[in-house]
Amino acid sequence: MTAEARQRTAEAVARTIGDGDRLMTHFEIELIEIRPGYARCAVTVGDRMANAAGLAHGGALFAFADIAFAHACNSHGRLALAMGVDINFMGRVDLGDRLQAEATEISLRGRNGITDVRVTNQDGVLVALFRGRSLQLDRPLAP
Amino acid sequence: MTAEARQRTAEAVARTIGDGDRLMTHFEIELIEIRPGYARCAVTVGDRMANAAGLAHGGALFAFADIAFAHACNSHGRLALAMGVDINFMGRVDLGDRLQAEATEISLRGRNGITDVRVTNQDGVLVALFRGRSLQLDRPLAP
Amino acid sequence: MTAEARQRTAEAVARTIGDGDRLMTHFEIELIEIRPGYARCAVTVGDRMANAAGLAHGGALFAFADIAFAHACNSHGRLALAMGVDINFMGRVDLGDRLQAEATEISLRGRNGITDVRVTNQDGVLVALFRGRSLQLDRPLAP
Amino acid sequence: MTAEARQRTAEAVARTIGDGDRLMTHFEIELIEIRPGYARCAVTVGDRMANAAGLAHGGALFAFADIAFAHACNSHGRLALAMGVDINFMGRVDLGDRLQAEATEISLRGRNGITDVRVTNQDGVLVALFRGRSLQLDRPLAP
Repeated sequence: MTAEARQRTAEAVARTIGDGDRLMTHFEIELIEIRPGYARCAVTVGDRMANAAGLAHGGALFAFADIAFAHACNSHGRLALAMGVDINFMGRVDLGDRLQAEATEISLRGRNGITDVRVTNQDGVLVALFRGRSLQLDRPLAP
Repeated sequence: MTAEARQRTAEAVARTIGDGDRLMTHFEIELIEIRPGYARCAVTVGDRMANAAGLAHGGALFAFADIAFAHACNSHGRLALAMGVDINFMGRVDLGDRLQAEATEISLRGRNGITDVRVTNQDGVLVALFRGRSLQLDRPLAP
Repeated sequence: MTAEARQRTAEAVARTIGDGDRLMTHFEIELIEIRPGYARCAVTVGDRMANAAGLAHGGALFAFADIAFAHACNSHGRLALAMGVDINFMGRVDLGDRLQAEATEISLRGRNGITDVRVTNQDGVLVALFRGRSLQLDRPLAP
Repeated sequence: MTAEARQRTAEAVARTIGDGDRLMTHFEIELIEIRPGYARCAVTVGDRMANAAGLAHGGALFAFADIAFAHACNSHGRLALAMGVDINFMGRVDLGDRLQAEATEISLRGRNGITDVRVTNQDGVLVALFRGRSLQLDRPLAP
């Protein structure tokens, strides 16, 4: 497959996720960039992402990173299942903050992949580190 | 503090979370049981929890487990921050499935706690294992 | 395979590990009990397990838990590779302490397994929690 | 503290670890480079690191990465406790392989730090990824 064809595959995967991912829509998460094995998303932390302390919900931050991860893992055109994740939260996130999530495939051994996601705020401060483990299946994300 | 007072504190924490947690409301997550260091939640997987493959979203499953975790960690009346989580996904979750998340405090060393959450489906099958790390602060969740 | 045959397989695996595992020998780790999907080991923390602070080395504690994990994962007679581990250290371990590591298979989904190991000291206090991820291959541990 | 004084502190910490760490001595692990928040170690995988399958032991690989981690975490002159680690093994390691472990402090939030360690072999192939969580105490590693 040429580099151009691989890029077209990645972009088609992004359209499928953009159309069908209900959390991406609900939290108004934007895809900024996609390449094979790489994705970058952005979001402005809104009320819908709030926990009871009035801060960004751990579940919403995870979902934000997970959506960048899903783009990067599935970008090769094969369906990737998330097998597990280690996430660390290292900075306070307030409503109104503007976040970026950058997902980079680190390793692919047989069907088992590792993809790192860095979540930073508008000041470039690291607020979460997500390390996802994926299993690549032999069938496409979308038929 | 008597056992009764500790239970009242846990229940007051649950009301604060129930009122303010936007993901709990959006996904229609129910609190079934709360005790100091323990919580059990339930949810029926609806459209709002779907990913692009038409299955339960990893981010929604995480958020479900995280809400049980937050109840258990905060139940002592001190604000608990999530420092990090290791989550494993081990079973397919379809729309319409009925899930339970059971959170149990495993360890508290100084201000650093470990809380395990088991997510099972309507057949009692384990679908996710969540191990959360918390930091307990010296101030209450709600003022 | 009968329960008896499965138990004999587990015991044969234990002999193979006991003969060939160089860290088990070096740290004088004992196997106390083995069953399919389960193992229990013990060790007295000696000088060989010390770090520069005069406490038990994180690497030695990990190796101790990992050896119980290897027994449990390989007990079915198929070679199991460790894909990854999340470990939490929650209590001080001094030289001279007597530790137990109890490994229990929690989940097996296709070839991907999760095995939990609890490490406790002579007072029954939890000192480490190890959650290992394994990949089961179609060939035996020993030819 | 000047940059020079900070470097001297890091080097003094390295001498303390080099003198007292029993696993470092046993596995013949070498410190190649140390700076505040950073360390690089090397080892040739010998018989002492073997498991029953004749490959590098997960416990020995963990200990190797953990020793680079300990150098980086303690390099500021304050005693750092390992609170937990997520490790992924992504490549086969044979006896005779020459490994490097490069530890880099990623985040320090209050007393809670995250340090990443990459373990590569003689061909530059990534064989393990270690993400350690530390707690920095207010007293020195060595009195």
